[in-house]
Amino acid sequence: MTEPIRVFVTGGTFDKEYDELKGRLYFKDTHLPEMLRLARCRLDVSVRTLMMIDSLEMTDADRRIVVDSCRSCREARIVVTHGTDTMAETARALVAAGLGKTVVLTGAMIPWAFGSSDGLFNLGSALSFAQVLPAGVYVAMNGRVFAGDQVRKNRESGIFEEVG
Amino acid sequence: MTEPIRVFVTGGTFDKEYDELKGRLYFKDTHLPEMLRLARCRLDVSVRTLMMIDSLEMTDADRRIVVDSCRSCREARIVVTHGTDTMAETARALVAAGLGKTVVLTGAMIPWAFGSSDGLFNLGSALSFAQVLPAGVYVAMNGRVFAGDQVRKNRESGIFEEVG
Amino acid sequence: MTEPIRVFVTGGTFDKEYDELKGRLYFKDTHLPEMLRLARCRLDVSVRTLMMIDSLEMTDADRRIVVDSCRSCREARIVVTHGTDTMAETARALVAAGLGKTVVLTGAMIPWAFGSSDGLFNLGSALSFAQVLPAGVYVAMNGRVFAGDQVRKNRESGIFEEVG
Amino acid sequence: MTEPIRVFVTGGTFDKEYDELKGRLYFKDTHLPEMLRLARCRLDVSVRTLMMIDSLEMTDADRRIVVDSCRSCREARIVVTHGTDTMAETARALVAAGLGKTVVLTGAMIPWAFGSSDGLFNLGSALSFAQVLPAGVYVAMNGRVFAGDQVRKNRESGIFEEVG
Repeated sequence: MTEPIRVFVTGGTFDKEYDELKGRLYFKDTHLPEMLRLARCRLDVSVRTLMMIDSLEMTDADRRIVVDSCRSCREARIVVTHGTDTMAETARALVAAGLGKTVVLTGAMIPWAFGSSDGLFNLGSALSFAQVLPAGVYVAMNGRVFAGDQVRKNRESGIFEEVG
Repeated sequence: MTEPIRVFVTGGTFDKEYDELKGRLYFKDTHLPEMLRLARCRLDVSVRTLMMIDSLEMTDADRRIVVDSCRSCREARIVVTHGTDTMAETARALVAAGLGKTVVLTGAMIPWAFGSSDGLFNLGSALSFAQVLPAGVYVAMNGRVFAGDQVRKNRESGIFEEVG
Repeated sequence: MTEPIRVFVTGGTFDKEYDELKGRLYFKDTHLPEMLRLARCRLDVSVRTLMMIDSLEMTDADRRIVVDSCRSCREARIVVTHGTDTMAETARALVAAGLGKTVVLTGAMIPWAFGSSDGLFNLGSALSFAQVLPAGVYVAMNGRVFAGDQVRKNRESGIFEEVG
Repeated sequence: MTEPIRVFVTGGTFDKEYDELKGRLYFKDTHLPEMLRLARCRLDVSVRTLMMIDSLEMTDADRRIVVDSCRSCREARIVVTHGTDTMAETARALVAAGLGKTVVLTGAMIPWAFGSSDGLFNLGSALSFAQVLPAGVYVAMNGRVFAGDQVRKNRESGIFEEVG
């Protein structure tokens, strides 16, 4: 069998949708369950939405919610979907919390609601790293995995890279 | 940096397309490069097409080509895209070859050319397992990873499961 | 208001789906209602499935069902979704029946279930012609409209063209 | 043969795209040629981009450009892609110009760049009305056709309706 994995949803580009009446982007419900169904994922996954916000609007209080949820859930392997803009910040907060669990953060550059999204690839990537990596905090983006306190998003290219 | 990863394409449902003039499914070129681009994958990946066939039509000679290619390529980490019907057979042939490399086989239940494909999820999954698992042969399907000689495809459900 | 329009579904490439367990194309339920919803169509449309077959398998008995249904339904404006291979034959059968109604046949070269389908364009096209053309039988494909007994499908190109 | 049809692009939701680096919607190039290709459209269509703006930002000067372009082009049958918010205003400006041509305005509630767009349906609809309607100005939305000076967009529902 497979170990249970918890997925915490915080929103970000992953879950953005197009509001046709107002002509703008917004959040409704998470698409995670639909994506897992499409992927024919047979892992023991529980999805819980903590918030649905653009990560540029995340506050320290929001990050504490993420940390506390990771600490208190029964699972030892966790994936957190998150906006890419401040994913590295939340990763550092999780590192500082010393949870002793495997936590993998991931996101998307293109909303799932759009046809050409990297979201499904990143989700598959993060769930795989979550199953095999030892306790620690990681960021899974662009097919790669980074230590949670040694990564940043390059604002010009939108690509994640290692930092000293 | 990341270790170079080789992707060998053998066809399978992953790459099936719809021939609108004849009204049937067929193979043209692999979609792997396009999928990696969409995924914004920044791994050092080289894609090589070995064949483009339905795995039900794979012969022992075809499997030898897969084994030999995995042996002779310079990379130590390999992903093989493959039809799901006989993926477990090719996995066993690779186990028997004792290559001392990390080889992960994956595929898709729905062609990439169709909208609702599991292909991108499986590709992200396989590339992640390929980066972190030790030398050995594995099958990555449905979000899970199996030892290459301990897996089979359940024909009724289409789901992969562990066998003794 | 708008006049009521009847849509008769006969199958064809329009509605083909991919059977992931058997790895082949097949028919399940029609996607017409879903397509009309996506299109935000506000016409008074009733959809009825007459059959779900590849038009190469249509018999004279099947064609009689299509003709009889067009004759007996209360609507004077009708769209028939149909496989492209023998659409011109069914059109001629309808011309011969002299129904005194506006009947527009259309189809698709790529199944709706696939991402890159011409189906939604053809549906919009056919429903528009059905609203404004006088009584008669027509084929709407490739953005054009043809008199029902003056059209054929070019087998090499897959394009519909006028014939004397 | 078919009469030549001119398509003038003004932008609107039809052509909006997602800027992944800034996380917002914007305009790049029109998708019209790509949509016509996907539709396997065999009409004699020429596409010209007049502007790429949200119709809420259209000024009288912009509307004069649309009117003048419709007047001076050689074609007598024209489709104008337009944002839905002020489509009725531009339609009225075209009615007032008394061009003596068949002009059909259409748009989309969901950007083409997103998976579930009504754009392709509306394009097929508009091109069909443009071929058969007599000289006049029309709005083609939701599968229906309206006289250009007797239509408005219902802001609550996003649906187009007839007005006295």
